[in-house]
Amino acid sequence: MKVRAGILVTGTEVLTGIITDRNGPWLSEQLRSMGIEPAQITVVADRPDDITAALAAMSQMGCQLVITSGGLGPTADDLTAAVIGSFQGRPLALDSEVEAVIEAILAPLADRWPNLDHDAVMAANRKQAMVPAGATVLNPVGTAPGLIVPPREETDGPTVVVLPGPPRELKPMWADAIETPAFKAAVVGAGSYRRSMMRLFGMPESELALTLRNIEEQEIDLDGLEITTCLRRGEIEIATTYSPDLEANYQKFAVAIEAAHGDLLFSRDETTIDQIVAQLLQGHSIALAESCTAGMLTSRLADVPGSSDYLVGGMIVYSNDAKVELAGVSPATLADHGAVSAEVASELAVGAAVRLGASVGVAITGVAGPAGGTEEKPVGLVWFAVAVDGQAVFCRSVQLPGGRADIRDRSTTVAMHMIRKALQS
Amino acid sequence: MKVRAGILVTGTEVLTGIITDRNGPWLSEQLRSMGIEPAQITVVADRPDDITAALAAMSQMGCQLVITSGGLGPTADDLTAAVIGSFQGRPLALDSEVEAVIEAILAPLADRWPNLDHDAVMAANRKQAMVPAGATVLNPVGTAPGLIVPPREETDGPTVVVLPGPPRELKPMWADAIETPAFKAAVVGAGSYRRSMMRLFGMPESELALTLRNIEEQEIDLDGLEITTCLRRGEIEIATTYSPDLEANYQKFAVAIEAAHGDLLFSRDETTIDQIVAQLLQGHSIALAESCTAGMLTSRLADVPGSSDYLVGGMIVYSNDAKVELAGVSPATLADHGAVSAEVASELAVGAAVRLGASVGVAITGVAGPAGGTEEKPVGLVWFAVAVDGQAVFCRSVQLPGGRADIRDRSTTVAMHMIRKALQS
Repeated sequence: MKVRAGILVTGTEVLTGIITDRNGPWLSEQLRSMGIEPAQITVVADRPDDITAALAAMSQMGCQLVITSGGLGPTADDLTAAVIGSFQGRPLALDSEVEAVIEAILAPLADRWPNLDHDAVMAANRKQAMVPAGATVLNPVGTAPGLIVPPREETDGPTVVVLPGPPRELKPMWADAIETPAFKAAVVGAGSYRRSMMRLFGMPESELALTLRNIEEQEIDLDGLEITTCLRRGEIEIATTYSPDLEANYQKFAVAIEAAHGDLLFSRDETTIDQIVAQLLQGHSIALAESCTAGMLTSRLADVPGSSDYLVGGMIVYSNDAKVELAGVSPATLADHGAVSAEVASELAVGAAVRLGASVGVAITGVAGPAGGTEEKPVGLVWFAVAVDGQAVFCRSVQLPGGRADIRDRSTTVAMHMIRKALQS
Repeated sequence: MKVRAGILVTGTEVLTGIITDRNGPWLSEQLRSMGIEPAQITVVADRPDDITAALAAMSQMGCQLVITSGGLGPTADDLTAAVIGSFQGRPLALDSEVEAVIEAILAPLADRWPNLDHDAVMAANRKQAMVPAGATVLNPVGTAPGLIVPPREETDGPTVVVLPGPPRELKPMWADAIETPAFKAAVVGAGSYRRSMMRLFGMPESELALTLRNIEEQEIDLDGLEITTCLRRGEIEIATTYSPDLEANYQKFAVAIEAAHGDLLFSRDETTIDQIVAQLLQGHSIALAESCTAGMLTSRLADVPGSSDYLVGGMIVYSNDAKVELAGVSPATLADHGAVSAEVASELAVGAAVRLGASVGVAITGVAGPAGGTEEKPVGLVWFAVAVDGQAVFCRSVQLPGGRADIRDRSTTVAMHMIRKALQS
């Protein structure tokens, strides 16, 4: 019997779009890796009725487990623990041990914020030490403790795991939660599953639809493989979930995809283009010159811990003056071909590498819009160049769809794939 | 009578965390601005049973309107239109006008992807021309048309607005949808509401909890004001929703917040720090030198359309060599004080501005981790400097919490506020 789980993200600020929920997707991934099926992610406001209605719906859908995120802060609109306690029929009481833990955490705040009324802050946070009867307390990562609240007595309703909203508190607390007896008791019977991923770059999603139909006609058995395809940041991802005993079927499917699109298939495991490029750059050094992306590509490279081994630096050459002054682009090239051109991209890539003594140079220059487009060089036209050992080895343009943010983001993906190809060739 | 709406985001790739949902929060905000109350945002997999269960729950919660996003693509896992048709009791049929529209959209693909089997792509996309009986068709923005599907006959169930998943298709289609008679009929009775926002920088959220309690004790009537507070990227946001006849109460509340924290309150309307800085930079020019943030701050400035008016460029000085070569930092300063120091931050800010002839220079240099921290300079220590007219006018350090990504992101917010203060002083 499959264990299903609901994920309930509370917070008016999340529901109204002020902040983006990152916990729901992350928890979903964690659940799947444990063989627990996420049934839904629901976001509701910090309102008792709406939280209760969502809990009831998940309970009716057969969820044995509900994970909540948010609503554990010190302000009055943080009311998750109280609502869960009530839903499970478990009244709240002050837990003095938990209170002492929070007090110890808050003590150093007085140094950092000298104007704070310390006693009043303690009172505000005492609210966070209220615990439903029978619940397991999870130690605070920030100031808010988490909870595992067992089902309402004499029912087969869900166990509710109550976690704080900030991802950097939620993630370590989740690691603690799954080790508790209360959690383990709730997920008895969870099976296992496998998820495999293939990633392709350089084709539209509709072409893949055709390939998938062709594969089915080849009498490859896709039953039991849950295949989902998705266009993300210009790449196509094929994620497949299946029971381990269908591994042979998945392998046949993967071989068929490779036969159809081997030239575009760049990742056969969970590896991302960012990880591949980081790996390929070991032993090299890289410098960048970015115009329309204004640092997004360099920042993307620096997202990888340890990138300082190969990332020397970059130049954000937004103006023509900066292109000349920092990357040594010739004013004549700018005058003859314009800033968005193969010639300027090449000089930028070579110039960045030479200036910073790097073995690899990369350049992006394009029209991100909304203004600045012309008939000859419309919004979305972006030129790229990669130089290796002082020579521009790749130089190409693409015409990207979407608005300013899309064009800039997509440009970083195109550049990552050009770096990959330059270093693999 | 308040009109409530449910937002249903479908897609296994969203539920499993492969892609981040941006449509739910955006739609929620749109609904609220029309006086429609978002009741919940729910994400489910591309599975008919789960989609149907979510629709049923929203119907039971009294939603007169449901907006769906996703599942309109050409592949077999895209099945939203069929499931909604079935839920509403409205069988699907091929709409030949819609088919012709899609065919015209796809024709140019043949040029861009010359190896495509064009007829097969047309067949894959014909699926997108299947329309439930009685539905209003919304013209495709990409290749997928949207739908407004009326309630099941002789019931008071919800009207369902079916939109595509990609945000750049969903947003313009939403603008079309709300102008249709079918949509207007579904939301008769929507009232109006006001949302006001205050933003503060430089205090913990628990301090605000204390202020809110003090305000209540001052006998300011907060009934009917739905106040939510949220810590976002290092700033505190106070969003308040209320009926227009409570404007006077809101104004009293806002005055009380200003009295308590006027020095930290930087925005009294929806204005963001990014917009404020963009406004303050009019008539100036700015150049940046970034180490640990590696271009994130410059890229954040460039997110604002029209930023080329004042953004000259920047230097990503990840290595010490780049600090010397690009920004002219003295090797002696680096040797004496280390890269993460007040002295290096000041030289970077001045050097960036002088090098690029900008009136404002900004520098960030810090330890983003996970490696590289020491007892004296731990992970999270970040130095900032702002130079105006060749002089370092602000120089400070902060110790930021969280992991590598948090530290880098939070650093850009601290820098934005330093630029604001430098230009306002």
